[in-house]
Formats: sequence, structure tokens, C-alpha cells
Amino acid sequence: MRVRKRKGAMEHLENHPEYVILEPEKAKGYWQDIFGNSNPVHIEVGSGKGAFITGMAAQNPDINYIGIDIQVSVLSYALDKVLESGLSNIKLLLVDGSSLTNYFENGEVGLMYLNFSDPWPKTRHEKRRLTYKSFLETYQQILPPRGEIHFKTDNRGLFEYSLSSFSQYGMILKKVWLDLHASDYEGNVMTEYEKKFSSKGQVIYRVEAQFKD
Amino acid sequence: MRVRKRKGAMEHLENHPEYVILEPEKAKGYWQDIFGNSNPVHIEVGSGKGAFITGMAAQNPDINYIGIDIQVSVLSYALDKVLESGLSNIKLLLVDGSSLTNYFENGEVGLMYLNFSDPWPKTRHEKRRLTYKSFLETYQQILPPRGEIHFKTDNRGLFEYSLSSFSQYGMILKKVWLDLHASDYEGNVMTEYEKKFSSKGQVIYRVEAQFKD
Repeated sequence: MRVRKRKGAMEHLENHPEYVILEPEKAKGYWQDIFGNSNPVHIEVGSGKGAFITGMAAQNPDINYIGIDIQVSVLSYALDKVLESGLSNIKLLLVDGSSLTNYFENGEVGLMYLNFSDPWPKTRHEKRRLTYKSFLETYQQILPPRGEIHFKTDNRGLFEYSLSSFSQYGMILKKVWLDLHASDYEGNVMTEYEKKFSSKGQVIYRVEAQFKD
Repeated sequence: MRVRKRKGAMEHLENHPEYVILEPEKAKGYWQDIFGNSNPVHIEVGSGKGAFITGMAAQNPDINYIGIDIQVSVLSYALDKVLESGLSNIKLLLVDGSSLTNYFENGEVGLMYLNFSDPWPKTRHEKRRLTYKSFLETYQQILPPRGEIHFKTDNRGLFEYSLSSFSQYGMILKKVWLDLHASDYEGNVMTEYEKKFSSKGQVIYRVEAQFKD
């Protein structure tokens, strides 16, 4: 997600240590302590302006959610939403998707979400796609055996690539949706992108992919 | 494919033993002898009126094609197309997809095609779908290790189901197309259905799925 640079964004994040974990190396292995409970920890990599993670946290109070984004301005908008929600089961993390093993112990993440990730359509940028095999290796480490990635996008090329990438990595595609909003899937929480593009008639794809033991 | 019963269809098939193999049990293990060469044998299960298999045979003279359908009238129309084509690298087979191991030796089929198979949308009919696991077991036997199924359909529900069914069976999705006609895929041979439905703006899905060793 590209947004204009927001003045004072970093300061905004620093002013809310109750939500924004700015020394995440220290949190590795201690996420449930940080949340103050023993509920499962679910993460969204590329959480953008936070509509999904905030919506999920409101819908599922017994799960701890962590929204992860690398862009300061984007995360500061997510912080606005989290502050507005008043929810206690969300944290935000300003880190890169490729470095997650620095911040999460093996198996510490119960489930992970990828939503409307940057498609990087050019073949020479394949390695930057969040469903490229090197990312999958990282995700597999922090998830438990048979851990799952739930992925949504409106981008056909990225979805075609990702189905194949998951499968070639050895993951199982448990369930696939080729038009999520026309399906009987219940409890869908929409991202900002999803609201915008589905209102224009764009099909939304979804998959639940599972690592092996 | 449902077609009206055609008068004299069976007689028509019987009159062309050069194309229609009516005692296929005897062909098991001898398909290359029947074709009179050592070229690979590719099959289409559910070949309908034969536009795909005839088009493929014309495009690839060094491959032997077998069109398989269980309906006498349907296969008789395919025979018309084969006769018209004058090609020598096609045979037709009047058998059921679940009984293929009776007619093909282990590994005797180089590649197999499924096109616009009956979607059987009701859950209680899942076992009739040609991508149900019991069919995959049959296909795996007659294909070589790492053999492939190339599958096309316009039916969203069947494609969603099939991606997941292939994957859960342990197959790898080598490549997926979510809008074949908008892609840069070359050499696509259209089936009767495909011509009809794509002209109405219907998206065509395609996947190349591979068995493991």
C-alpha cells in the first residue's frame, strides 16, 4: 500500500507503546505475555491502514492480533483505527515480512493473513512477492506444524502465482474461493482495498493454504 | 455433455474399427502397437463431440490421442469429426472414466486432459466429479511418475473444488490460469463448450497439475 508521507507519523507511533511494539526483538517468545493472556496470536503481514486487523479483533476477542507493516505512515493510520476501536487484543509492528523470525519464536504464530499484497507483476521482481518461497520458509518457521496462511487478493496474476507457489512449496490448498463475495463464506472482514475494488465489480480471490507437518 | 440420442449411433461406431476401439480390454498395454508407432499416448476423459482431441491431433502429429466418452451418441459425433479430419493419430473409446485401469497399463498414458467436465454441483454428488480423489487414484495408475493432468473449465465451483482436490491428493499445481483467454497462453485448442461460453464473456479456468513420484 502506497500512501503519502504523513507528518509526525513516527512520533505518533512512539506515543502509543501500549499498541506499537517498537523493540520487537525483545518480544520474541513473549507475545502472550505482552497481550497478558494465553490466547492464540494471529498476524497480518502488510496490514495497511488496519481495517482488516481491527475488524478481526473486534469479531474475535479471544484471539490476539498483530498488524505488521514496514511503512511508518501506513502504520500510523492503522494506529488511528486501533485507538478509535479501543480494543485490547491488537498490537502493531513496524517490521519487514522477511525478518519475522527475529520477532517470533518457532510456532509462536497461530495463523497468518496476507491481504492484497503488492503484486510485483514483473518476473524480475518475483522475489519481492510475499508468497515467494523464501517468504514461505520464514512463515513456516513462526507457524506451528500444519499452520495456515489465509490469503486474499483482487490481483489475478498474483493469485495464479501464489496458488502455484504454495503448492510447489509443498503446502496444501485446503479451500479456494474464486469469487469470495459471490460465495457463502461468512464473517468476511473487508480491507480498505477490498471495499474499494469489490464495489467496482472486481472479483476477490481467497485461499486457505496449509503447511505440512 | 448431454446430447439427444442419435439414431444408428452405435452402428456408426461399429462401422469404424479403424478409429473406435470396441474391445479396449485387449488394447491394454498395446496402445502404441494399435497406433503403429512409439509416440506418446495422450487421453482426454470426457471428450464430448471431439473438437479438442481432433484439434490437438492436428496440431501435434507426433502424439497419439485417445478421446474417451461414455455416451454412444456423443462419441458418434466425435467420430464424425475424426472422419472428417482424416487424421491417423486419434482413436476413440466408449468407456467410463472410473474404469481406465482396465484399458491402460500402469504408466501407459503420457498426459491426460479433462475439459469442461460435468460439475455435479451438489455435495452429495461429489464422488461423481472427475476430479474426485477416487478418479485421481485411477489416473495416477495409468500415468507415469510425475504425470500430469491438464484441466479446463468455465465452472467456478468445479474449479475451486478441483484445485483443492488435486492439492489434498498430494498433486502439485504447476501453473494456474484464472482467465485463460486473457492470458498469453499459446496454442489453446478450444472445445465446443469453450467456444460457446467464452463468446458469452465467461471466464475460462485452466490448471496443470502434477502427480508426485
